[in-house]
Amino acid sequence: MSATPVFARLALIGCGLIGSSLARVVRRQNLAGRIAVSDASEAVRKRVVELGIADAVEADPARAAEGADLVLLCTPLSAYRPAVEALRGALRPGAILSDVGSVKSCVARDLAPLLPPGVHLIPGHPIAGTEHSGPDAGFAELFEGRWAILTPPAGTDPAAVDRLAAFWRGAGSKVEIMDPAHHDLVLAVTSHLPHLIAYTIVGTAADLGNVTRSEVINYSAGGFRDFTRIAASDPVMWRDVFLNNRDAVLEMLGRFTEDLTALQRAIRYGDGKALEELFVRTRAIRRGIIDAKQA
Amino acid sequence: MSATPVFARLALIGCGLIGSSLARVVRRQNLAGRIAVSDASEAVRKRVVELGIADAVEADPARAAEGADLVLLCTPLSAYRPAVEALRGALRPGAILSDVGSVKSCVARDLAPLLPPGVHLIPGHPIAGTEHSGPDAGFAELFEGRWAILTPPAGTDPAAVDRLAAFWRGAGSKVEIMDPAHHDLVLAVTSHLPHLIAYTIVGTAADLGNVTRSEVINYSAGGFRDFTRIAASDPVMWRDVFLNNRDAVLEMLGRFTEDLTALQRAIRYGDGKALEELFVRTRAIRRGIIDAKQA
Repeated sequence: MSATPVFARLALIGCGLIGSSLARVVRRQNLAGRIAVSDASEAVRKRVVELGIADAVEADPARAAEGADLVLLCTPLSAYRPAVEALRGALRPGAILSDVGSVKSCVARDLAPLLPPGVHLIPGHPIAGTEHSGPDAGFAELFEGRWAILTPPAGTDPAAVDRLAAFWRGAGSKVEIMDPAHHDLVLAVTSHLPHLIAYTIVGTAADLGNVTRSEVINYSAGGFRDFTRIAASDPVMWRDVFLNNRDAVLEMLGRFTEDLTALQRAIRYGDGKALEELFVRTRAIRRGIIDAKQA
Repeated sequence: MSATPVFARLALIGCGLIGSSLARVVRRQNLAGRIAVSDASEAVRKRVVELGIADAVEADPARAAEGADLVLLCTPLSAYRPAVEALRGALRPGAILSDVGSVKSCVARDLAPLLPPGVHLIPGHPIAGTEHSGPDAGFAELFEGRWAILTPPAGTDPAAVDRLAAFWRGAGSKVEIMDPAHHDLVLAVTSHLPHLIAYTIVGTAADLGNVTRSEVINYSAGGFRDFTRIAASDPVMWRDVFLNNRDAVLEMLGRFTEDLTALQRAIRYGDGKALEELFVRTRAIRRGIIDAKQA
């Protein structure tokens, strides 16, 4: 727990899985003196009040952002622009505007032109989550041991970056600074492509005529159920990810499709050696993830 | 626990994850009076002796099968034929020969011609497993609440099928009788295709030049790590699955590729509506799996 809060006043814009997890850990670790939450959904606002995880809950993002020294966007990417247009008048010089979105290049590009002078724009992304959504899904331990990536534009005040990094470390994360375009490429393969594939195969299985839905469900323990977990993630959030990271996702998808086609050919022609060689090789990556404590 | 054993003498041919889990649950539930194990690997046999999960451990499958009323093949599919050629002389009339392999059409086709008269051939498949391999990976609870599918050829003695079903129920499973070709189609989508895709994407990620292996590992919590778990499964077992269920896997792979191509097009042209519609639809399947207690 932090002896003095890293920020005096935190505004969380959006309070789903990530926002509500942040509210919980910020309070537990004393990372901010006051937590104001804004959410576009009345049902969410009501629930946040009931959960008692914020000091103030506002419909208007500008009210939440008023006097905040850290404003964190925790909505789907498509809601960033309207939220910032609504709250920018409330941003004071020296405040940090950051976010938790899964794509980073688009954030500085879209938001920088909207901000008043003196506001530090530092896009960020905690690599953490579950397939559950909404304020009840959040928990304070979500960021424990996970990476938070910050992508400050060139020329950003290093003191502001350090302060935001201290905030994420306080939430339990390890912090990495990265170029936004590189972030988007890395996440395209470690997160966006896996989600796209999981959504696809679950859709394929749902559309079969010769295999019933109850068969798919009953016999899912052979591997399919893990894909359904991933494919239960928030639809709007993921729609926005694919729309905003198009080039990197298409690039990774192209490579994946080539590799899948090669395997398809190996199966068609009974090339057991090629199959076994790949299957042996992929075990090493799993070992690396276990060793890095990210399993 | 069964008051009298379902089988007097059980022979497990192969003692990896599945075989050693069976040995453990059979003893705990008193499903067989005596358990004989055979494994081609000297290291595995030594370990099975140390674990004390069998009454006899043999190098020669014929020695294990001698006098058995249930012989269960628990090796990769490619080892079935040599094992049965070695042990068929030891099979007595009335004995049941079954297996736990992930493909079923090939089993009756390949093994029936090898068997002496009076032996009941009843292929089977417990839909259960983990990514770990070997006798230490097994545990008695593996089959609890999972489905075991039996695919008896037309004309099989119903009493023998009932006895084998009672054995699997004793191990904690729910039992379903199915046509082998239909089994292979269902499992192609719920198990084989998910594994193929997981192996592929982990291989794709390992081959990238512009994203390092440590980046893939560190930022795997965004979805990728779940694929690496699946792609850590036993390479020889899975090579044999794809070689023996070629047509059904290629059929499902064709459908998957069509669906993925449609999504790729939606991303390229920014069709957010198509993306969101699929992402909403796939949540329902997850809900079904949770309701069916297979999550």
